[in-house]
Amino acid sequence: MAPAGRPTRRGLVRAAAGLAAAAGLGSGGRAQARIGAELGGSATDQRENLIEPFWGTHQGGIATPAQTHTYTAALDLVSPKRDDLIRLLRVWTSTAWSMSAGQPVQPDITPALPDSGEATGLPIARLTLTFGFGAGLFAKDGGDRYGLAAQQPQALIDLPAFNGDQLIDARTGGDLSVQACADDPQVAFHAVRQLTRLAHGVAQLRWAQTGFIAGFGPNETPRNLMGFKDRTNNPSINDAAAMERFVWVGDEGPDWMRGGSYVVFRRIRMALEHWDRMPLDFQEQTFGRHKLSGAPLGRTNEFDPLDLDAAGEDGNPVIPESAHVRLAAPASNDGAQIFRRPYSYNDGVDFTTERWAPWHQGIEYDAGLFFVCYQRDPRTGFIKIFENMVKFDMLNQFVTHTGGGLFACPGGIARGEFIGQRLIEAAPG
Amino acid sequence: MAPAGRPTRRGLVRAAAGLAAAAGLGSGGRAQARIGAELGGSATDQRENLIEPFWGTHQGGIATPAQTHTYTAALDLVSPKRDDLIRLLRVWTSTAWSMSAGQPVQPDITPALPDSGEATGLPIARLTLTFGFGAGLFAKDGGDRYGLAAQQPQALIDLPAFNGDQLIDARTGGDLSVQACADDPQVAFHAVRQLTRLAHGVAQLRWAQTGFIAGFGPNETPRNLMGFKDRTNNPSINDAAAMERFVWVGDEGPDWMRGGSYVVFRRIRMALEHWDRMPLDFQEQTFGRHKLSGAPLGRTNEFDPLDLDAAGEDGNPVIPESAHVRLAAPASNDGAQIFRRPYSYNDGVDFTTERWAPWHQGIEYDAGLFFVCYQRDPRTGFIKIFENMVKFDMLNQFVTHTGGGLFACPGGIARGEFIGQRLIEAAPG
Repeated sequence: MAPAGRPTRRGLVRAAAGLAAAAGLGSGGRAQARIGAELGGSATDQRENLIEPFWGTHQGGIATPAQTHTYTAALDLVSPKRDDLIRLLRVWTSTAWSMSAGQPVQPDITPALPDSGEATGLPIARLTLTFGFGAGLFAKDGGDRYGLAAQQPQALIDLPAFNGDQLIDARTGGDLSVQACADDPQVAFHAVRQLTRLAHGVAQLRWAQTGFIAGFGPNETPRNLMGFKDRTNNPSINDAAAMERFVWVGDEGPDWMRGGSYVVFRRIRMALEHWDRMPLDFQEQTFGRHKLSGAPLGRTNEFDPLDLDAAGEDGNPVIPESAHVRLAAPASNDGAQIFRRPYSYNDGVDFTTERWAPWHQGIEYDAGLFFVCYQRDPRTGFIKIFENMVKFDMLNQFVTHTGGGLFACPGGIARGEFIGQRLIEAAPG
Repeated sequence: MAPAGRPTRRGLVRAAAGLAAAAGLGSGGRAQARIGAELGGSATDQRENLIEPFWGTHQGGIATPAQTHTYTAALDLVSPKRDDLIRLLRVWTSTAWSMSAGQPVQPDITPALPDSGEATGLPIARLTLTFGFGAGLFAKDGGDRYGLAAQQPQALIDLPAFNGDQLIDARTGGDLSVQACADDPQVAFHAVRQLTRLAHGVAQLRWAQTGFIAGFGPNETPRNLMGFKDRTNNPSINDAAAMERFVWVGDEGPDWMRGGSYVVFRRIRMALEHWDRMPLDFQEQTFGRHKLSGAPLGRTNEFDPLDLDAAGEDGNPVIPESAHVRLAAPASNDGAQIFRRPYSYNDGVDFTTERWAPWHQGIEYDAGLFFVCYQRDPRTGFIKIFENMVKFDMLNQFVTHTGGGLFACPGGIARGEFIGQRLIEAAPG
């Protein structure tokens, strides 16, 4: 528990590790303490107020240890005016900074729109806000609305149509993305809600998705809704070389993307009723891992290396040719890696028809994975790996992609800058 | 932090307070420790394994201090066989007990359907399961499927149609309800998922709803998504007389409902975009409370009494005639009270048209309140109070009821009994 007005232990450790400048920590703590005092109680002082850095080389919410909740939204730009866009990016930046330090929307920003208040009294909860630019920011319907078309990164392509996609238009695409992550669902939603209100007349919501990670221990890999550990084979956020190679955009440019990353969102519905009727052995063959331990088939520990060449007594591969882990492995993809930061989602039930024989239909869970991955280049990241998987992965029988998008997340924001400022300045209007 | 194999501090306190028999605590702790050992780690030992009692005078999940997450489902019975129903209630009871003690579905229950595994390694998280019986259990389409029609309580009526209702059939009603509450969303969902699987061929999902309460401090009233504190004026679970009077069914019967309660679920969508455009003063007049403090208008502290007769200098009531708190107050309803145990819900966005002028339409939040209330008799509880509110409450402009149901939750289960056993025995087939 951290005394009010001082950075938290974890914040200090994080800052000391050099992940990003920890500017704003002190004032954030004070702000939260002040709110607590106004409420006439000391309850907020008794909980940990963990703050993630806002300014730095990279945006927060990418290499940040995953918070337990997300509220992720995509917006369509509805104003044709470049000045409106710039004003929006400015106010989003200052407000995102305020909120990630535990402060409400500042009155001088919008006298007529005070903070909606539902996060008042809540812990800061490690809130991060990660902004992304969709292809529609640069060109839409053949038009260059904001004079930015020449700055569209070559990597920001339209995602190809993948075999089996059942993308719902209303759940797909968008010109701007905002991913809020926090250790509290209301803190995450509150943040996107304020930013959306500030966008009134300039951008409007297109889709939004809640997600969560269950409360597994700090050294445990979370299990997804299929009951398997998910993320065992992920580049480590502590491996700077791997992060530079696979996640952060380098000098291949454009300059405003340096230190940034490309995010792919995919809303992946799982046919959980169907999955639950499958024998454990079949499930393990499908994943290529043991369910309880998470170990590769034939091994005993979760982090034992994947031996894709191992053969059983019958001469067949221990990890089947079409197992999920084999097809996702770097060795199956010319070394390609992506940084997965997925959440589970749970949107109740609806009437649906499964996409594979025997085409079960009825009231089924609309639940599964809100897949989020970051990469230096989607063409050599998600697209390359998923084009391979979508053809052969046994798991495809149980999952359906119903929405998502690709967004370019600019490099981190220096204090005094606004998100995307280097993009705007590179293309004077 | 609780050593494995011993009941947690909180569990002991709860048991000592006499809320219910704490049977099963020890074995639950051991089970969880065993799972931890199988996983080869001690992570589970480092977290609190809080267990709520399962057997007792009342079902868990009613007077239980509210957990932070719910997964609530209603099912339709699809088998006409009384024996199938009885078998289902038996297996639901034993499995609910297992899970609330942190154990997976037991192999002897369903050799072909092992636990789906996604809660393995998670804390027990105070899981409770609360079962309810809808009117359709007793009579459906004029038929008495299970020989129980004569046992339908008079209080288990069809909810009347309320002014402004926009109930969606697929989100409304059901023959059985299961409300899982836990301090982890995956633990709650896991529990309902196992019970639903065990119902295969006997009952099938009709609707399901996730809900959450943000992480406010232990002595703070949670704020709903409108930013106001919700639940200030609630009967206290520590006030046994009030609970007997307003929540628990007494000797008015039927006998199997003694110690039980009636639950009303309402999925209440909030027009948050519209609400957020309203000035703070208007919002406070609508609720009848100050937003920041939660105090009644004109007062300073949250728990200051509601003075409905207070008038301002202009002679008008300080708390407006149509303010939410006035219309909900016992003094406005002949002393009627209900025990509210609501959650917020957040299901993303969709295209909608608001129900009040100026009839905004567009992509809006599908978020709001999953209202849950318990009462001794819905005719003198929710129905009485809500019929008053629905006509005059200023808040109606911003909320729309889109689903829900009324269920009779039997009294608590004695060890060795199954849920509803006294009902079944009262009506021999």
